[in-house]
Amino acid sequence: MTETPRPDPADPEAAIAAAAKRCSNWGRWGADDVLGTLNFLDEVKRLAGAACVRRGVSFSLAQSFDANGPQMGWRRRTNPVHTMLDTGVDAERGTQGFPHGIGGADDVVFMPLQASTQWDGLGHIFDHGTAWNGRRAGDVVTSEGDQVTGIETAASPIVGRGVLLDVGRAIGHDGELPDGFAITTAHLDATIAAQGQTAQVGRGDLVLVRTGRLARARREGWGDYAGGDSPGLSFTTAEWLHDREIAAIATDTWGFEVRPNEFDNAFQPLHQVCIPHIGLFLGEMWDLDALAADCAADGVWEFLLTAAPLPVTGAVGAPVNPIAVK
Amino acid sequence: MTETPRPDPADPEAAIAAAAKRCSNWGRWGADDVLGTLNFLDEVKRLAGAACVRRGVSFSLAQSFDANGPQMGWRRRTNPVHTMLDTGVDAERGTQGFPHGIGGADDVVFMPLQASTQWDGLGHIFDHGTAWNGRRAGDVVTSEGDQVTGIETAASPIVGRGVLLDVGRAIGHDGELPDGFAITTAHLDATIAAQGQTAQVGRGDLVLVRTGRLARARREGWGDYAGGDSPGLSFTTAEWLHDREIAAIATDTWGFEVRPNEFDNAFQPLHQVCIPHIGLFLGEMWDLDALAADCAADGVWEFLLTAAPLPVTGAVGAPVNPIAVK
Amino acid sequence: MTETPRPDPADPEAAIAAAAKRCSNWGRWGADDVLGTLNFLDEVKRLAGAACVRRGVSFSLAQSFDANGPQMGWRRRTNPVHTMLDTGVDAERGTQGFPHGIGGADDVVFMPLQASTQWDGLGHIFDHGTAWNGRRAGDVVTSEGDQVTGIETAASPIVGRGVLLDVGRAIGHDGELPDGFAITTAHLDATIAAQGQTAQVGRGDLVLVRTGRLARARREGWGDYAGGDSPGLSFTTAEWLHDREIAAIATDTWGFEVRPNEFDNAFQPLHQVCIPHIGLFLGEMWDLDALAADCAADGVWEFLLTAAPLPVTGAVGAPVNPIAVK
Amino acid sequence: MTETPRPDPADPEAAIAAAAKRCSNWGRWGADDVLGTLNFLDEVKRLAGAACVRRGVSFSLAQSFDANGPQMGWRRRTNPVHTMLDTGVDAERGTQGFPHGIGGADDVVFMPLQASTQWDGLGHIFDHGTAWNGRRAGDVVTSEGDQVTGIETAASPIVGRGVLLDVGRAIGHDGELPDGFAITTAHLDATIAAQGQTAQVGRGDLVLVRTGRLARARREGWGDYAGGDSPGLSFTTAEWLHDREIAAIATDTWGFEVRPNEFDNAFQPLHQVCIPHIGLFLGEMWDLDALAADCAADGVWEFLLTAAPLPVTGAVGAPVNPIAVK
Repeated sequence: MTETPRPDPADPEAAIAAAAKRCSNWGRWGADDVLGTLNFLDEVKRLAGAACVRRGVSFSLAQSFDANGPQMGWRRRTNPVHTMLDTGVDAERGTQGFPHGIGGADDVVFMPLQASTQWDGLGHIFDHGTAWNGRRAGDVVTSEGDQVTGIETAASPIVGRGVLLDVGRAIGHDGELPDGFAITTAHLDATIAAQGQTAQVGRGDLVLVRTGRLARARREGWGDYAGGDSPGLSFTTAEWLHDREIAAIATDTWGFEVRPNEFDNAFQPLHQVCIPHIGLFLGEMWDLDALAADCAADGVWEFLLTAAPLPVTGAVGAPVNPIAVK
Repeated sequence: MTETPRPDPADPEAAIAAAAKRCSNWGRWGADDVLGTLNFLDEVKRLAGAACVRRGVSFSLAQSFDANGPQMGWRRRTNPVHTMLDTGVDAERGTQGFPHGIGGADDVVFMPLQASTQWDGLGHIFDHGTAWNGRRAGDVVTSEGDQVTGIETAASPIVGRGVLLDVGRAIGHDGELPDGFAITTAHLDATIAAQGQTAQVGRGDLVLVRTGRLARARREGWGDYAGGDSPGLSFTTAEWLHDREIAAIATDTWGFEVRPNEFDNAFQPLHQVCIPHIGLFLGEMWDLDALAADCAADGVWEFLLTAAPLPVTGAVGAPVNPIAVK
Repeated sequence: MTETPRPDPADPEAAIAAAAKRCSNWGRWGADDVLGTLNFLDEVKRLAGAACVRRGVSFSLAQSFDANGPQMGWRRRTNPVHTMLDTGVDAERGTQGFPHGIGGADDVVFMPLQASTQWDGLGHIFDHGTAWNGRRAGDVVTSEGDQVTGIETAASPIVGRGVLLDVGRAIGHDGELPDGFAITTAHLDATIAAQGQTAQVGRGDLVLVRTGRLARARREGWGDYAGGDSPGLSFTTAEWLHDREIAAIATDTWGFEVRPNEFDNAFQPLHQVCIPHIGLFLGEMWDLDALAADCAADGVWEFLLTAAPLPVTGAVGAPVNPIAVK
Repeated sequence: MTETPRPDPADPEAAIAAAAKRCSNWGRWGADDVLGTLNFLDEVKRLAGAACVRRGVSFSLAQSFDANGPQMGWRRRTNPVHTMLDTGVDAERGTQGFPHGIGGADDVVFMPLQASTQWDGLGHIFDHGTAWNGRRAGDVVTSEGDQVTGIETAASPIVGRGVLLDVGRAIGHDGELPDGFAITTAHLDATIAAQGQTAQVGRGDLVLVRTGRLARARREGWGDYAGGDSPGLSFTTAEWLHDREIAAIATDTWGFEVRPNEFDNAFQPLHQVCIPHIGLFLGEMWDLDALAADCAADGVWEFLLTAAPLPVTGAVGAPVNPIAVK
């Protein structure tokens, strides 16, 4: 297993094509497959995940979903808007029309499915009009949603062994990597080595990579957290991501991969390999800070991770409240 | 532990007041408490939950969230509406404006937070203008949301030992109870006895009660599943729910309690005791059928249950994709 | 000017093609045109409209926009959902945080743009992948909206002389036509004749056709008003609609044309001619009852009509509150 | 008619109370009134408005409603989000499932009702918990909307004589007033005098005041157009607004009145007099620039104005596409 060679910055299309060819999982789980790398997460792996529960402590890895989130409206991705249908103020005033003193509050939300802590589904990204497993993009995701790989098809499997790689802590300064920092396989391997035995990454694992970008946004304000510069995975990690046979990967950044990326003119090139070709589930905007502090304190970097997406039928991504239990 | 006496059907207000007095947990976890019975779900219980993972099989207990759901518009509770911001059809046509062949799909949802599989938060129901722990309802839930017990305060704790009580299978015909069937503590205890040792219910457990109502709606169409007649828990179970010190309870029905209820003129009277007085988390519209079939097949009715609500800030309820692992 | 011949019910495709050929306005107003028949509504016509104001009485021709509307969820067309961001109950309780006693209420709406009283824009319907003026449908309406004929391009012109043809009153029983009643040019001409001089229809007019279908829905409940059977215009009126050079036409029905239509297997065939080929603006679900009663009382069937669509950028249809002034 | 005396900047509460007392219209149109100053807009006034149509030219006074609007998320007021249910790209690809070549596009919008060009309804602002005509705010606007003065009650009347007072042009530099410029009655009267006979303002008129603030936002970017500093009406115009018996007034600014206002610590104090006490309809964020240019060119400042709000049931404000016809 060697690092993907550093590609020609002037030719993203060739680099993507080469990486896609090397890393393709098309057909690996049959022509009808909709789960991609989640196929690596089997029953044995779930038992291994449960075995990681040693103290019974649980952590939510979700940001709060509200109007104060990172979104700036790019491509109509607003922050969630939560409004009330009934309130306690109404109930207390006594005009809700219910009998014997019962009162209620109820509410509604409007939100882009990728507004905050989320999974990218396999229908989220295409390469030259082609989706995961070689399907035509237009056969998969129409205006009526993802007809094939809608996130509801991944409603049940995502529970297993999680591993946190705190690259920010291992490689960065004060636990944070700077914008534009490309995390290579060497950085990933060094982080694993620094963290020790419980940080080993293998087939079927759910890998979390912390860069410290969210911690910085919390401290300094959102700024252009959503869509601006950021540390993130190097394009050259594609082969590592493929060869390790991980089930999924998530980061504390908006876009998973480094921004600006390593090409002269490209947009999310690692996505273009990972989602349609590897069939890899990508998590974004996860809040890994409290978990990371706990792992640093007890030196244990593995845990049971449950991260079941909200099963909105036909969705190409989904909000999620991931729970780690140590 | 005795069954709550059958109350006077003509006087729900007195019955509710009496049950509220007997079952109140106000102040039990301090004046600032926002978690109610989730306080029973401690680290030991999470270890017990993890110990229930024997085969590594996972089940999603969520319905799909889409326009084909049960809602009929009662009090503006519509079904979720999912729309696309970008599609694969656009990507394939090549007019999205991205470089080097990358294309994307993205989406948005509008939905009542209690449209489908959900948790009622502690700010959802009030008794005579008073919310959980004795707070004034208008101090808790304003038009800006639940300022105190918003569902985001329960983002992390709900993972532990789950127990399924399939009352439909134990007591009903062909696995289903008829509309208006009030499940009493005798029915609950009989179901536990029939299911055996793994069905024991104790402090901190997450209890799932299957009535078969959802299975019938699937077979016959939604009809008035959302708000119409249904089997469900009897008002007389309030004391059982309180005394067992369970962490939460969920059912496969719209409204948790039996409908029509056991009073001449009342609306969700058991809610009025459970939420503001017991501080009990109620789950509704959970899909327990696949899990129930598995439990019946292997005779094991306990499992690890993770049911982290989507942490919409200030929400009085939340959609959830609960995952059971056996 | 003769009636379009009654087409072969077994061959809608041929009939549509023939009518499209006879009635096409492609290129009539240049290759860049986005207004279609609204080009007929010129300044002279607006003066004529203003001259119809004789008494100063105004009528809203809009239904109320709310959750109690006709929609049943077909193709995700729900009714509008209106929720509050702030309320008077909050203001009265005094907890809004504003100084010196000011309080406020504010609100939000989620609605399909064609949920209620509306205009169909020129990007709403296509014929074999082709939009108004011969453009490719995919060049016009993408996931980002109508890039060419978005309803905002018609923000200002729709004010002129309106004429009400109360076919329900002239031809029907008790002012109403039955479902499936196809209004032919003979019926239109007979109505004009019955109503007299003020009902003459000419170039640039805004024509309103009342069937009585909405009055029936009000009396009997919505039922399948939205998408079910209905009286409406016959396919054979295409040539009349084209040759009269009207600026727009609106009805009190969900779908403008008769349902079921006059072919064995077709969906809204008259739309397929009118919108992409004639470039005709169609109004639907207008409430014409109060205006019709007034016209019947004073015998004057013409008026100033203002019907400016809400200019949602890129919309293919728009809600409207049309105002008639007599 | 004299100018309201300049109040004590340190005591907004007293100034508001005094102005409210001087200007109150409570009870003027009966205890059940829901229209306030729209009662001044009678049939005679509509005839006068129609008589202003001299050339047949129409102007939309609405901004476009889209994601690129002025809102910054203050109090959850986002810009409108428009999404597609069906597109031309889908239709062209031929996978919509309709027969004989028909294809369609359809769409949906989520928007605060005061996101863009709008009317404030009478339920929008309260004074010490009291709404228009002396009603308790909590009796008027609950979580279910405005139960009394919902904007649908004003669906039909707003068509009449409009008058544009281009204060920016008459008083400002290059047609624009600076932020914080308080327009007094002297400025209004000077503008009327400068514009001449057609600019006379009287009972029942719909008055439009142009400051040039929108023109500047168009040129320089939105910045804090929505909620930041702005020219606008002085608090001291309350009496003028009351005594002239105008039907409504609208401006090209976010907030109608000058910002910062003329008190040391106050929030929209003129609103607090105008809406609950005068019962005056306020329009905000109207686009008056094209109309103003035309009026300056021909020297005619009056026109027919139709500004029917979108009748969302129970709304406290409403989007509107106002049409001026000269």
